Amino acid sequence: MMDKNEEEKLDRLFDFFREIDKEKLITRQTYVTGARRMEDDAEHAWHMAIMAIMLSEYSNEKIDVLKTVSMLLVHDLVEIYAGDTYAYAGVSKQEQHDREAQSADRLFGMIPEEGKKLRALWDEFERADTPEARFAHTMDNIQPMMLNDYTGGKAWKEHGVHLSQILKRNEHTAEGSQILWEYAREKIISPHVGKEIKE
Amino acid sequence: MMDKNEEEKLDRLFDFFREIDKEKLITRQTYVTGARRMEDDAEHAWHMAIMAIMLSEYSNEKIDVLKTVSMLLVHDLVEIYAGDTYAYAGVSKQEQHDREAQSADRLFGMIPEEGKKLRALWDEFERADTPEARFAHTMDNIQPMMLNDYTGGKAWKEHGVHLSQILKRNEHTAEGSQILWEYAREKIISPHVGKEIKE
Repeated sequence: MMDKNEEEKLDRLFDFFREIDKEKLITRQTYVTGARRMEDDAEHAWHMAIMAIMLSEYSNEKIDVLKTVSMLLVHDLVEIYAGDTYAYAGVSKQEQHDREAQSADRLFGMIPEEGKKLRALWDEFERADTPEARFAHTMDNIQPMMLNDYTGGKAWKEHGVHLSQILKRNEHTAEGSQILWEYAREKIISPHVGKEIKE
Repeated sequence: MMDKNEEEKLDRLFDFFREIDKEKLITRQTYVTGARRMEDDAEHAWHMAIMAIMLSEYSNEKIDVLKTVSMLLVHDLVEIYAGDTYAYAGVSKQEQHDREAQSADRLFGMIPEEGKKLRALWDEFERADTPEARFAHTMDNIQPMMLNDYTGGKAWKEHGVHLSQILKRNEHTAEGSQILWEYAREKIISPHVGKEIKE
């Protein structure tokens, strides 16, 4: 059988895996296909991770796909304590970041050694200053817009979203992928302008 | 703007991303933390992908982590048409495989070029004859047992699961990771034997 140190390390890791199970209960403001309910953070991360794997060739810069996928899988864990902040809720970026940083301290502190890597991934995502983080943000912006498109723009309509808000939210999307931003603007956003999206 | 071929390829990919959104509606027989509801396939895949990234050092053999994570993220997509088959439902492995293979033809056929890689990952998972597939199966077996443990063995109790069924289901778990299997047997399964798990 394993030694005491090994066992304690696995105990800590499994305590962490149990804690992050709560991400499945963090509801977002985007409807899943069929619009029967909103999606949760875990589903959102899963969807983006597959998209990142299949769309990585469209990144403006060469990316480490495993790092990008890891970043996408863990970047919303901070919402377990901080909650989801809707893109168009009007909360200041700084306020959201401070709340989430406290959450990161608490969650990743559960696994002091292994948590460092996850914290570094989250910090990198927040700074958005590497090719991986830029592409991850492109996924994080396009995936919910795609779902809004699939569900007839329902969430946009309910929140009274204006085109100017969407363009502001997406001001850096092209920095991860010029092609995917052009595609999203033409095929995912434009069809809803003047209908579900206010001009 | 992109050329016609590029646009058509992205149209196919985004049609595929829309179709796989349905995985979020495939309910499993495992409760999430708090036991308020069952988890779905997308949440299950997300949870395992993070576990695989953080536990890869415990694999018996060296693994390509990105390949393993990709396999875990996509291996249940076939359930979109075939539905979830509960581990202890008594359905024959062959019957389940045949139904899922038909589903794989249909789903991955939406993207003939890009689907080949996903199909190859699923086939490899099914054959379980590589280090990555063996470790992916270890994750796929341990994650639901872990959730059952976290929720007081509720699903095991409801399904009247016997220890012999769990051991049969886990006959290959140690092939992916001897250490994680020993840990799971001692810390996740044993505490429930004679209580939620029938001997």
